[in-house]
Amino acid sequence: MSKIRLYGASTSGNCLKTRWVADLMGREYDWQEMDVFAGDTRTDAYLAINPAGQVPCMVREGGDVLAQSNAIMLYLAEGSALIPDDAFDRAKMFEWMFWEQYSHEPAIAVRRAQLKFMNIPEAEIDPMLMQKGRRALGVMELRLMARDFIVGSAMTLADVALVAYTRVAHEGGFDLEDFPAVRSWVHRVERELGLEPAEYEGV
Amino acid sequence: MSKIRLYGASTSGNCLKTRWVADLMGREYDWQEMDVFAGDTRTDAYLAINPAGQVPCMVREGGDVLAQSNAIMLYLAEGSALIPDDAFDRAKMFEWMFWEQYSHEPAIAVRRAQLKFMNIPEAEIDPMLMQKGRRALGVMELRLMARDFIVGSAMTLADVALVAYTRVAHEGGFDLEDFPAVRSWVHRVERELGLEPAEYEGV
Repeated sequence: MSKIRLYGASTSGNCLKTRWVADLMGREYDWQEMDVFAGDTRTDAYLAINPAGQVPCMVREGGDVLAQSNAIMLYLAEGSALIPDDAFDRAKMFEWMFWEQYSHEPAIAVRRAQLKFMNIPEAEIDPMLMQKGRRALGVMELRLMARDFIVGSAMTLADVALVAYTRVAHEGGFDLEDFPAVRSWVHRVERELGLEPAEYEGV
Repeated sequence: MSKIRLYGASTSGNCLKTRWVADLMGREYDWQEMDVFAGDTRTDAYLAINPAGQVPCMVREGGDVLAQSNAIMLYLAEGSALIPDDAFDRAKMFEWMFWEQYSHEPAIAVRRAQLKFMNIPEAEIDPMLMQKGRRALGVMELRLMARDFIVGSAMTLADVALVAYTRVAHEGGFDLEDFPAVRSWVHRVERELGLEPAEYEGV
């Protein structure tokens, strides 16, 4: 296994996903901390690596570049139990990973970023973000009411992808008290990942 | 191969993706036409199938449900040349599929829907959609300047995912004249899919 470099921000759920999976897989990596709000992703040097100007981004020895948190996780977890063997279960994992990036992250992560990092007053935040985020949490609640993990009976990349911003949803003003199955699942996935519960940080 | 049912709208690139891949794979399917703007995805009957209230959605014999256009394509194309064998190429395919859903579709497909189907006057459309969409087309132009397909040397699901709304970008007010490599690639992928060029429809 060749060494990899991960460019990421430790405050970003998308970036942490890739670090958690690298850690789970025992993969050696060099972490390059990036400050998105200080413009680190908009420098010429970084845009030459990732023209999309986003983190996370992975660089292999030899220079191959891979972007998109979920694609990096899929690459690092190749052949592990984090990706189901069964074709339909694997497809369900993809379903939830695409749903996360389309319907969950753009509401929950964005509202958290505006509130916590961009210091936008709550009254000025687009009210659709709360509505869309609560709808996403409701869809998860429905899924998790009768199951321990998003797909099958063990943690997959779908859980890792979804927990990244769900565990810090309270920092975006979302109250997980209203979504008890989601809240139990967050603690379950945090234990699997060996993380301290984010819920109690900074409360 | 068991028969499948696909719920989709023929005007939606996301839905067409799944039909194109089913056709390429010679997969038998029953197409259920859905009118999103008439509320077909918000009925109790449909929400019981897909609680996320989105199309496309695939149902297998026996009732297993799979949502998310890109997850459905991945399921239908399993084991075919549309998914690269090489692990890194496959990861790059995933990268572009996630990027499509996060950075391309929410600008280009949304602006097209507002203009073409929701009849929102151009002056009232969020100007960020044009800016974000042109930035996405610029990222694709950079990628396609020196290559025929998004990943490797043949069409993969990344091309299918990205062509769905790029080929109708003009209906969203985006001028592909400014992105010549993207334009050539659209025609190339349309030929691979056996489609008539969308560019000349309704111009």
